[in-house]
Order: sequence, then structure tokens, then C-alpha cells
Amino acid sequence: MKKLASSLVRVRYAEADPMGVAYHANYFAWFEVGRSDLLRGLGFTFRELQQRGFYFPIIETQARFRRSARYDDLLDIRTAVAFVRGVRVGFTYEVHRDDDADNPLATATTVHATVDSEGRPRRLPADLHRMLA
Amino acid sequence: MKKLASSLVRVRYAEADPMGVAYHANYFAWFEVGRSDLLRGLGFTFRELQQRGFYFPIIETQARFRRSARYDDLLDIRTAVAFVRGVRVGFTYEVHRDDDADNPLATATTVHATVDSEGRPRRLPADLHRMLA
Amino acid sequence: MKKLASSLVRVRYAEADPMGVAYHANYFAWFEVGRSDLLRGLGFTFRELQQRGFYFPIIETQARFRRSARYDDLLDIRTAVAFVRGVRVGFTYEVHRDDDADNPLATATTVHATVDSEGRPRRLPADLHRMLA
Amino acid sequence: MKKLASSLVRVRYAEADPMGVAYHANYFAWFEVGRSDLLRGLGFTFRELQQRGFYFPIIETQARFRRSARYDDLLDIRTAVAFVRGVRVGFTYEVHRDDDADNPLATATTVHATVDSEGRPRRLPADLHRMLA
Repeated sequence: MKKLASSLVRVRYAEADPMGVAYHANYFAWFEVGRSDLLRGLGFTFRELQQRGFYFPIIETQARFRRSARYDDLLDIRTAVAFVRGVRVGFTYEVHRDDDADNPLATATTVHATVDSEGRPRRLPADLHRMLA
Repeated sequence: MKKLASSLVRVRYAEADPMGVAYHANYFAWFEVGRSDLLRGLGFTFRELQQRGFYFPIIETQARFRRSARYDDLLDIRTAVAFVRGVRVGFTYEVHRDDDADNPLATATTVHATVDSEGRPRRLPADLHRMLA
Repeated sequence: MKKLASSLVRVRYAEADPMGVAYHANYFAWFEVGRSDLLRGLGFTFRELQQRGFYFPIIETQARFRRSARYDDLLDIRTAVAFVRGVRVGFTYEVHRDDDADNPLATATTVHATVDSEGRPRRLPADLHRMLA
Repeated sequence: MKKLASSLVRVRYAEADPMGVAYHANYFAWFEVGRSDLLRGLGFTFRELQQRGFYFPIIETQARFRRSARYDDLLDIRTAVAFVRGVRVGFTYEVHRDDDADNPLATATTVHATVDSEGRPRRLPADLHRMLA
């Protein structure tokens, strides 16, 4: 079972800063696109999970920005499950541009709590846990 | 009773585009800051109104961008009530920079529906209606 | 020659508001995706045009938001050239969701100045003008 | 010499997500507000530094999100210089809400390269280095 996703995003003008490169805060929105696509590939959507009362707020992140992505670049966000453990789930990300597939522009990890709609810790739904673990 | 608000916002690096000026989509987030401050000045907050089941989705906007706001500029968003009528409320905005107080950088209007949490038309709460009208 | 573009965007979690629907300011970033794709379809990119010294700041917009787009919805942004005239170019937009292709969620127009890197009026490059007009 | 800044930001509706809390990517824009205010307090602005040919792209970040900030919350972003070393400068951040001043909602660090307009390593300007170190 694939626990990877590849998401294409093109850097929007709205996402580029005065140096003409993608502003770093936008990477975190792209990583969320990656998580969302990864779950979709496993047959789940965050929207459905939320309707079932499962939420995944971020509690921790680390990111390294090695080279810049410019406005209009087409990027490949590669997302993978890092771990699933109790009420925590972790993901890793690589941001690639096709001119140099071996050297990601950026790498990151995020750790998420799994909670209910009130923010109380709640284990992942069993069906999703099975798919991710 | 004052039905005006003046909101200071400084253009963030995240809001500036490759030309070094504020990306236009951000003005609409600033206008919402203006609406929010206007209501706060009347003793209301959108958050409390939402908790009471009142929402104000935008249904229409017009905006003119006359001159650019640059990164780090300090702007004054001047918001006023344009009308309150049935299940509609309208606002006007002027974006000023202090180097030329008479000529706004941008002007805009927004029209909002007043609805409940399910999106059904719902008249403004009577206390707020009295304050705005 | 096609002067239309169809751009698919999926509503990101980062773009959804507390009502669970796409925050309206994001539509303006999507419209820019539409303009960008329309030009790309004609063999141009905004990035190349900028490198040649042509910029297209927005000077005016009108938008109507008829129904909400929700988080995770897949939207079709349909962009068309409205007019090209002197140092002005206009575009129209319709935002569609496939559950009701005949009734756009939103419609809008934008008018742009055509300027050089210093913001001075500058006619569109002849090759691009020919393609758009 | 103060090498700290305290920046007040109110969570905008545009920054709140479907759970009603501030979307995490926005914290990184707020940290940049903090850096900007810290430099301003020392008599510098990023805009002036950029005009002098100094840029500070982020190369690394770590962040922990402990509790959520809600829409309309007033937050205090406390920024400090962590280190200045060769062509690197580091900052730390704490995000506070006044209902619990001792426990930050979030903490983070960012590390930046100091480069020229072409992205080549360039030591901080001597006057700024003296102020920060």
C-alpha cells in the first residue's frame, strides 16, 4: 500500500515575495496539500474525517529551505507518513523542481495530534490507522 | 454614534509581491479588519455575533486600486457603514497612506448577506441593527 | 485562437475560513492563476513578460459571490479576455463546481494597467497584443 | 541595547481555519512581523536594508504549537536575536495571549542567511551587526 503522495503545485504570483521567490510560509500550506493528497490516495479525505469528528492540528514542525522556488515554478511536493503512534501522526516532505530531481529545494517534517472536535486527544479511526501504519 | 473605523495595518513582507508592492488580494483581508474594528467600536465583535448565530458572508465587491502600497508602508483603512437593509449590509473603504491623506490608494465597497449558521437569510440582531442604521 | 483558460484549483485548508468555506480574498489569487494559465496557453508567461519589462497591476475589480465553495472542493476557474485597449486589458472569470456547471459560484471582472518596471504606462508587447485582441 | 521586540497582532478572519483557530502557516508571517519590528527598534528597516543590497532568506525553522490561537485573539509576538555569526543570523519567538502570560501558545526559531540581491553570501552590514551582536 502506497503511503506516499506526489502533489504538483505551481508557485502563484500571490505566493511570491519581493525577491521574486516563494514566501516560506506558503510551503506549510503546500505541505497540507500533500497530506490531503496522501490521505485521498488511501481513500480518505480530511473533510470526511472532520465530519466523523477527527481533526489533526499541527503541534510541531521543522523545515529546511535549501534553494528558492521562484514565481511560476512547477513544484512536486512529495509527502510520506513518518510514523503513527497513539494520538500522534508524523509526515515528511520534500519539495522538488524538475531541473534537479535529486536535490530537494526544501525538506520538512510535521507532527500532528489526533483530536476530536473539542480538541481532546482521540486515536485515529481504526480504518485510517490500518492504512497509515 | 460613530459608524466609522480607522484601522492601521503595516504591509507585511508576506503580503508584498515581486514588484515590491502589496498584492491586491490582501486588501480584502484588510477590509475585513476594518469591518471587524468598526463593529468592535460599536460594542460588538464578529466572534460574539457568530456565537449568537449571525454570519455575514460577502456577496459582492467593487474595488479600485489607484496607487500601490509598498512593503512596510503604514496604511490607514477607513471603513464606514454604507447601508443596512433587510438581510443586506454594505460597507465602504478607503486605504490611505499618510504621505497623501487626500488621495486614497484604494477605494472599495462590499455587500454582505446576513445569515444564520446554515447560510439561511436572517435579519441582523436588533441591537446591532440599531447601532448601524 | 483560444482566448480562454480553464484552471482547476482545489480549495486548500489554508484557504477555508471558520464557516468551512473558501475565504473570498483567495478568489483573487485564483483569478491570477487563471490569467497566468490563459497567457501560458497563448505561449506567454507573466514571468517572461516581466523579464521583458511588462507588468500588469490590477486597477479595478468587481466580483459577485453567489454560493460558497467549501474546503476540498475542486473548482474550475474559467478566464477570458474581455478587452485590450491602449494601456488597459480586462478579463472576466467564472468559478464553477462540477455539481452545477450552469450556475457559477462566483463571477468577476478585473481591469489591469500595462506598465513598465517603473510603473509607467506602456503598451502591451505587439506579439501579445496580437494574440489577445 | 534592546534586542527584543513585542509585536501585537490580532488574528484575522482570513487567518482562521475551519476549526476557528489561526492556521499555522500564518505564524511564520507573524514571526516576520516580529523580526521587522525588532530591526525597526534598532533603527533599521528591512526595506532600507534591501535597498542597500542586504537580504535575509530563511534557511531553517523549528516551531512548536502548544495551544491554539482563535480568530480575533490579540497576540503578543515576542522576538529576540538568538545569534549573529558570519553569514547567519538566528531569532527566537514566543507567541503569547494575555490570558496566560507564562505559557506561550507557540515557540519557534528561525535561521537566516545574509545574502546580496543575487543570493550570494554577504556579511551583515557592520552597523547592523554591531547592534545585533
